[in-house]
Amino acid sequence: MLKDHTRMEAFRQAIFQTVAPGDIVLDLGAGTGILAFWALQAGAQKVFAVEQTSILRTARQIARQNHLDGRICFIRGDSRDVQLPEQADLMVCELLGSFGIEEDILPLSLDARRRFLKRGARLIPQVLTLFVVPVEAPETYDSISFWEDVYGFDYRPMKVYLTNSTWVEAFSPRALLSDPKELKRIDLRANSETHLKASIECLIRRRGVLHGFCGFFSAQLAPGILLSNSPLGAPTHWNQRFFPSPEPAELRQGDKVLMD
Amino acid sequence: MLKDHTRMEAFRQAIFQTVAPGDIVLDLGAGTGILAFWALQAGAQKVFAVEQTSILRTARQIARQNHLDGRICFIRGDSRDVQLPEQADLMVCELLGSFGIEEDILPLSLDARRRFLKRGARLIPQVLTLFVVPVEAPETYDSISFWEDVYGFDYRPMKVYLTNSTWVEAFSPRALLSDPKELKRIDLRANSETHLKASIECLIRRRGVLHGFCGFFSAQLAPGILLSNSPLGAPTHWNQRFFPSPEPAELRQGDKVLMD
Repeated sequence: MLKDHTRMEAFRQAIFQTVAPGDIVLDLGAGTGILAFWALQAGAQKVFAVEQTSILRTARQIARQNHLDGRICFIRGDSRDVQLPEQADLMVCELLGSFGIEEDILPLSLDARRRFLKRGARLIPQVLTLFVVPVEAPETYDSISFWEDVYGFDYRPMKVYLTNSTWVEAFSPRALLSDPKELKRIDLRANSETHLKASIECLIRRRGVLHGFCGFFSAQLAPGILLSNSPLGAPTHWNQRFFPSPEPAELRQGDKVLMD
Repeated sequence: MLKDHTRMEAFRQAIFQTVAPGDIVLDLGAGTGILAFWALQAGAQKVFAVEQTSILRTARQIARQNHLDGRICFIRGDSRDVQLPEQADLMVCELLGSFGIEEDILPLSLDARRRFLKRGARLIPQVLTLFVVPVEAPETYDSISFWEDVYGFDYRPMKVYLTNSTWVEAFSPRALLSDPKELKRIDLRANSETHLKASIECLIRRRGVLHGFCGFFSAQLAPGILLSNSPLGAPTHWNQRFFPSPEPAELRQGDKVLMD
């Protein structure tokens, strides 16, 4: 996913814009370490790179290969189980799923902010905004309709199972039945919620069949630097998240659809 | 994956050919239950359907919807932790990965055979054969070469990490540098190995660049019924498994390549 140029450039710019010389930085969910490396290039004194998976071992080798290992402290584990020897001036965190919050950025960043950061510390990203938009997606929905009759068996419970699931899809702007609507704006510097409830009404722009909702995010990484996986923007490795309807529904222009 | 017609037809035929009236059947890794349903249609008296994931709940609903729940006993758990009240005449098991063995069919079927089956019980599949073939796959290999230089950092440890990994790819017959070679033939009715060691020499058929090996399987489900994900056969949902080389290598016709 380091191949996603849109994402990488946005993070690179945000880091070079935000890091102050001598900063202590926390990289939450460090992966192969690229954000930590940039933070050091941008002038950080030290980075604590916390990562839960075995990729950390490779990240450590890459740091050594690039003579950066003296200034990065790699820590393997769930960040909620970790202690740091000192508090950080800046947290960078790329735990972003297709709908923003699936990789637990809310509970993880909340815990990290409380335990690992100095008062008034900076965050990348700062603000996460979640959007939804009703979509017409007959081909995507075929994977649900398939389960009506499977080799002569009534497989409709599988349809119910799937319409209670979500998955990643690439939606084209043509699929959208209304303008995207902001479902929730989360200021990660102040947020204390880890579970979201929200509902939103969408005004249908054209006649079509509602197959579900497309969810995506916009992350403000730093002032003036937005990263989004909107179906109306540049493609990213995230694509978007699909929330299927229990049943397809015919809609006309001017109809209102509620998502909650 | 019930959409994979090649796979489903092979299992359906094998079940109707193998089940004897009144059989007690074990479905190991039952998923949504389709093999259990076929076993009942084919005359089984009762099926024990063991499944580790939450899909079991949906399988139970589907059974009820089709009035088959009275003759299926659903059991959720790792089969190695499960007890059955009686022994089975036949085990069906579709725990097959792209290279046959990744879903732990060897240890799971060995344990199930010893604890859950009558002496001389029948098995579907009966025999599993693993194949490898050297391949030229420049586009697949690009995903490894990418890591030489990432935004100016030396990321070669990531290449090492990836060449020690395997992944699923769809190979066309054009990618093959030799004839597929049988790496291992495993008779699931008698096998007692859970870890495989094997090595094989392949004779190169044409000039080309070796990027790695393609692995696939052939499963004999019943006498005369073979199911395979060979790149030379009908497409299946499995595709094949890719074992990358540490470095690409130029080869000429008549060269020999060792895989172990």
